[in-house]
Parts: sequence; C-alpha cells; structure tokens
Amino acid sequence: MLTELGHITDEPGRLTRTFLSPGMARANRLVGDCMAAAGLAVREDTVGNLIGRLEAAEVGRTGPVRRGGASHSALPKTLLLGSHLDTVRDAGRFDGPLGVLLPIVALADLKVRGVKLPFAVEVLGFSEEEGVRFASSYLGSKGYCGKLTAKDLAMRDVDGISVGEAIERWGGLSSSRSGKHAGNLLDYQRARDLIGYLEVHIEQGPVLEAKNLAVGVVSAIAGQSRFKLTWSGKAGHAGTTPMALRKDALAGAAEFVLAVEKLARSTTGLVATIGSLTTSPGAANVIPGSVVHTLDVRHAKDPARRAALFKLGRLAALIAKKRGLKVAWQRTQDNGAVACSPTLTARLEQSVKAVQGRSLSLVSGAGHDGVVMSALCPIAMLFVRCRDGLSHHPDEYASPKDLAVALKVMIDFLGRLAVEHRMSPLPAAAGPVFVPGSRRGRNRGK
Amino acid sequence: MLTELGHITDEPGRLTRTFLSPGMARANRLVGDCMAAAGLAVREDTVGNLIGRLEAAEVGRTGPVRRGGASHSALPKTLLLGSHLDTVRDAGRFDGPLGVLLPIVALADLKVRGVKLPFAVEVLGFSEEEGVRFASSYLGSKGYCGKLTAKDLAMRDVDGISVGEAIERWGGLSSSRSGKHAGNLLDYQRARDLIGYLEVHIEQGPVLEAKNLAVGVVSAIAGQSRFKLTWSGKAGHAGTTPMALRKDALAGAAEFVLAVEKLARSTTGLVATIGSLTTSPGAANVIPGSVVHTLDVRHAKDPARRAALFKLGRLAALIAKKRGLKVAWQRTQDNGAVACSPTLTARLEQSVKAVQGRSLSLVSGAGHDGVVMSALCPIAMLFVRCRDGLSHHPDEYASPKDLAVALKVMIDFLGRLAVEHRMSPLPAAAGPVFVPGSRRGRNRGK
Repeated sequence: MLTELGHITDEPGRLTRTFLSPGMARANRLVGDCMAAAGLAVREDTVGNLIGRLEAAEVGRTGPVRRGGASHSALPKTLLLGSHLDTVRDAGRFDGPLGVLLPIVALADLKVRGVKLPFAVEVLGFSEEEGVRFASSYLGSKGYCGKLTAKDLAMRDVDGISVGEAIERWGGLSSSRSGKHAGNLLDYQRARDLIGYLEVHIEQGPVLEAKNLAVGVVSAIAGQSRFKLTWSGKAGHAGTTPMALRKDALAGAAEFVLAVEKLARSTTGLVATIGSLTTSPGAANVIPGSVVHTLDVRHAKDPARRAALFKLGRLAALIAKKRGLKVAWQRTQDNGAVACSPTLTARLEQSVKAVQGRSLSLVSGAGHDGVVMSALCPIAMLFVRCRDGLSHHPDEYASPKDLAVALKVMIDFLGRLAVEHRMSPLPAAAGPVFVPGSRRGRNRGK
Repeated sequence: MLTELGHITDEPGRLTRTFLSPGMARANRLVGDCMAAAGLAVREDTVGNLIGRLEAAEVGRTGPVRRGGASHSALPKTLLLGSHLDTVRDAGRFDGPLGVLLPIVALADLKVRGVKLPFAVEVLGFSEEEGVRFASSYLGSKGYCGKLTAKDLAMRDVDGISVGEAIERWGGLSSSRSGKHAGNLLDYQRARDLIGYLEVHIEQGPVLEAKNLAVGVVSAIAGQSRFKLTWSGKAGHAGTTPMALRKDALAGAAEFVLAVEKLARSTTGLVATIGSLTTSPGAANVIPGSVVHTLDVRHAKDPARRAALFKLGRLAALIAKKRGLKVAWQRTQDNGAVACSPTLTARLEQSVKAVQGRSLSLVSGAGHDGVVMSALCPIAMLFVRCRDGLSHHPDEYASPKDLAVALKVMIDFLGRLAVEHRMSPLPAAAGPVFVPGSRRGRNRGK
C-alpha cells in the first residue's frame, strides 16, 4: 500500500504530492478504497482531509461511503488515528502515509478476527502538513479542527491561487458537497467526546537505530526558536591587516558556532543548529566584514529552551564585546513545545513494552499534526525506526519487520483502550498479522 | 596631479583604468606630459608601459619624446623609480599612480634647484598590475622585463581579445612603433647596469596609522599560499538528530577558523585569513553536511609560511578525526616571498630617519610590481600611511602632509645615492618643496 501510494505524484519521476493537487485527489481515492475495504465509512471534509470512521462496536461492518455523518446525539467516545497524506518535494514513501495506512491495516486485522471496539475510531488522512504549496503548514489538521483563519485562507501559492480558492475548486471524492467550510468539531458535538489522537510516524532521526529498537514513544514535540544572526566587524585586506588589528566577523561567528554546540551537548534534550552561514564580501583575500547565519534551537520544555536562548544571547554579546564586533538577532520563528498526554502515552508505553520488550521515550524534534491536534484532545505518538535516520528523501525507508512491530503495538494499544472502556480484552493475535509489502520488504530490509 | 589622473577612467562615474584601455592611453598622455615638463625623455614600450628617462648629470634637460633610447655603449648606472598606472574597478586615486607621480615631482624639484645626479633615472608607469582585464596580474612589469610568456600572451579578456591582440591594437603615445614585442632589457645591455628599483606605494593597511607614522620601509613582500578546503560530514534534520550523533561540517570548520586565527596571532609576521565560507545544503533546519572555505596564509619568510601550513594541515586532520569528518585541501595559489635589497633598504631607512625621526620596517602583505622587478635588480619599497588602511575603494586617501614626507624621503634617498656614486651631496631643500594638490589637500586632510 505504501509503495502504491508512493507512485501517486504530481511530478513525474519523483514523489511530490501537495495540498489539494490532482495527485492528492488520486491518493484520497486509493486510501479511501482501503478504508472502505477495512469496514470504515469514508468521507472527506471541506479541506480535503480523508476520514474513515468505524462506529463503536460495529467492527466488521462494511458500509457505503458516507458524508456528513449520522445523527450525533448518542455518539460514544471516539479515538482518532492518523497522519498526513501530502509530501515534501522528491519525498520518500513513509513520512505521513505510514500513520494513515497502519491504522487501516490494524482495523482490517480486527475485522478479520471479528474483534469489536467499545468506542468509535476515525482514521484521518490530513491533506496538508508539509507546507509545500503554501507558506504555512498544518492546513489539513487546522481545517479539521476548524482553526483555519482568514489569514490562512488568503495565502497564495506560486500560481496566485489562494487557500480559499483552492478549497472552492477542490472536487475531491464527491462532487456534491457543501461549498461552505464548516468546522469539523461539529461532528463530535464536544471535544470531550474524544479519547485522543494517536499518530504513528517514522522517527526522521537516528536514535531508534542507534538504540536498536523498532519503535519508541514520543513524550513531547519540541518547542522551536529560529533566528537570523548578523555579526558585523570590519572588512580588510587579508595580506596587509595584522592579526592584532582585525575585526573578523567570521572568527566571532566561529566562536559562537562552537559555543552553541557546547551548550547543546551539555544540556540534556537541547538541540541547536547553525545550518546556514554566509560571509561578506566573501573573497579569499578579504577579511570577512560581516557574517549572517541561522540559529535553530529546540527543546521539549519551553523554560529549558528559553534558558538556553538567554545563555546564547549572553555568550554572543561576550564574544562580540571581546572582539570589537556587533551582533544582531532577528527572530524568524517561535513555537512552544507540545507535551503528549501522560495517560495516553503511559498506555502506549505499556503496549510497546508488551510487544518489543522495552520502551524508549523520545522527544520529537520535528513538528507533526499532533501539534495542532493537541489543542483539540490528548495526543500520543509512536515513532518507527527509519534507516540512517533519513527522511524527506526518496531513500527514506522503514523495514517491514519494524512496521509489523508498530502494527502489533497499535493493536495492543486498541486492546488496552477497549479494556479501559469496559470491554473484554482482545484475543491474542495467534496467527501472523497482515504486513503490507512484507514479501518484497524482507528482501530489501536485510 | 593625482586628482586629475583620478578622473581619467574607462567607466563614467567611477575610477576604473585597465590594461591598454582608452583610459590608459589618456593617462599615459597626461603623465607623459608631466614627465616631459620635469625634464624626462618620454617613451612607451610595446606593452604600454610609460617610461620617462633622465640621463645622468643631465638634470634640467628638457628633451623631445624619444623612442628606443640612444646608443647604449657608454650608459652609466640607472636607477628605476615607479609603480603602476592601471587601477582596480571603482578604485581610489593613490594605489599605483602615487609611485609614478612622486618621482616626477622629486625630479622636477631637483631640476628647479639645478641639482644633477651621477646616474640615470627611469620613472616607470607600468600598464598593468591589478589583474583586472586579464586573469593574470603584473603584465606591465613582466613585459618591461621581457618575461611575458606565450601563455600570458594567449590569455583572453571577457570580450575574447587576447593579451597579444591587445598589444597589437595598442596605439599608445606614438603611432609609429615596431609591432614587435622586444624585451626592454636590451635598453640596459646588462641588468648589472641597474642600481635598483624603488617603489613608493600606499600601505593599504593600518599599521602606519596605528604607529602614527607618515611612511615606513618595506623589508619584504610576503609569500602567499591560498587553498580551498572542503569539510565533509553528514547532513541531518536539525530537530531530530541528537547532538551526540552529529557530524556537523560547520562545527569542524569553525574549530579550524579559530585554530588558524590562534596560530597566526601567536606567530610573528604570520597573517592567515578565511575570507569566504559557505555551508551546504545551507538550510536553517538542516545540519551542514559540507562546508567549503578559502584559506590565505602569508609570511615574509617562506620557511615560516611552510611551517605554518604544516601545522594547519595537522590541526585540520586532528579536528576532522575527532569529529568523524573528512577534510580535503586544494591549493589555488602559491607565491614565494620576495626580500627587499638589504643595502638599498638600509639607505632608504637612513632617509626615512633623517626626514621622519624614526623608521619602521614593514612587511608588505600585498603583492607589488617589485615582486617581478626583484628578478631584474635589487628592490626597495616605501609605504605611505593611508587613512583607515583603506584601499581599492574610492575613499582611499593619503594626506598631502604624508605625501610631502614621502617626497622629502625620496629626494634625500636620491642624494644619498648620489654621494655613494661619488658626487657631492644635494644642497638641503631650504624652501618649501612642491607638493601636488597641497592647497586643496590641506583643507581636506585635517
């Protein structure tokens, strides 16, 4: 399913699938068919999110595609499972789609085994998370939560089409739709009817691989601050300016680069990166008069991130003072950390321990749909090991063996939730579970 | 004279005068007229170098423009004084022209006072030093010394015109010239007829200003090595790659930037510069996978420069090993140091002490025509303080007061040489010497 979906693209020869694109329409059709085959009632909301709903205690029902949902007066609690179906440019197959397809396979497994759940489940395939078509990301989950602002709707893509216009033009699965953008929260009457949101995603980092674990549990999505720093010194002739008379902006910036690294290495959970640095005038025989570089600082706890920024600010000022340079900071981004739900996460950890033997707690350094969803309901996230920590690249890869572990964890998690909601536990999955693409995958994964 | 010459340009609105350009032809005409007024016999060689010759003991003679020189059978010794008349783009007025005009003024002063010299003097205005029109520099002095190679002549400018073709097309001062490029050494029979070459030049650095001195004496022109270094690590997600698992090419390069600075600061006479540095892929949220930067290392003594490069090579290897990076060196330039003549320089120092009270020995970090001339005869160089060490810029400035000091030094230097060549010393210049632009300059210089 991941491989087939990976061939649905807007750009021939490489995988690129953006918000409300023709590729997105085809992807929703394919994934919608999978949902229907797993017994889910499939619909799309006004921003192109694909939603497959399984009613409580109705496992095994295969219904027609429905729109708008039934009467909600007697809705039971609902669990949300999902991720996004859009991709970056020249993407891999796993980032996003994994978190949509895995729940479908889990629910299909329950259906085959005749297992029923005491709560409703919605599998969500968000239409936008990567921020490729428009300057902003999370359009899918924001739309799902009814949080798209007039400013969001007014953003335009490179062809001058606004988000609002793109939504108007979107044909999607059904041609008979209300043109109105209605907050999807109406579907649940109240957010308190939601049990929570669980997202499965590849790690996009090397920790699980280094720890030799298939999956790990996310404790929080890190808060993130980004800056542009400008160091100003004095340009001069590389041959005629003695070392003692120099005000070398690059030397100051280099000292700061190492100070950033040192602080991040000595502060648990802190990551800090200077990803781009340019020198000016930038000639071999001219002392750099100014240097501009980025700074990206992330931590799972906002106070720790703010404390690190305070220290870095002081260090930069000291370096500048010592060297007769000036340093200017310009903030370009500032997102607070999002903590995963302790109770939902504790349950997920139990499942991971049951399946894998031990659990590992990870902080997600990257943003995910969970950031937006956390304002709606408790969230939890399961990370799956990916080869070399590689992501946003055609070589992105997670092994079928690891996907099977993630699948077992999700099934176990559903079972634990079912127990909590006063149902008997699931029968143990005695036989082999269905793993997508496992035949091919085994040959590649070794 | 400097101001008038500073208006002769190839580009309206800014001073740019390149090898064998229309501006160069007009400049040679103006400076040639000045030479003639000072009693020099003016000619141009085949590569556009302007040459004003004063025969021995003939001070005061004003002759017609001559070509090819007279019979050389009984030539006395000849002293060469000069610099270049071409400029960089958007240049200042002093870099080059000062060293051509100052000797003319000095000889004009001797003429007014009726002083005769026991040796011939040639004032040289080289046609090319800056390397602007063609990829190579020193075309003027190389041509003067008969050292232009077939490779030099084959170089082409942006319009596809070769050095050889440019020389063929050059009209210059006289339209009746031999089209052949003849080595000018023929003019002197043997190089041992030359006393030496003295060049006056602005310092292009801040040392004299810092020492509060108008002029200083150059001991050597530094040798220079340039490299392109490439640091290779591993790109990765800035949010998901823990600090301990990173191979950050920029952090390694930053450590090297500081190591270079530290070594140069602790090694007398060494200057080392990283002028250009770029990160790749260069995104705010991606750890730099590779960094490319320049390295420029200069020292007046070749063994010291080589020792520094050896140390830096070892330091870079250590940093790379410690961090799991790779570092590759590519040599882009390698020029040996040129020592000024100890005897000629000692005499120049005596003159500087006589005029200024004390002398300061400087190493020239920049290259000059003296580099080429040193293969022909002993060389000496006098540096003149320039404001803020600024050069290659329209704001380049040396005060009339400092120029007057340089002029007095040159006249004193000629007197000392005259004594050595068994003539009575010059009468002391009792009255004020002629300083070009002094009226205007006084108002600006304060």
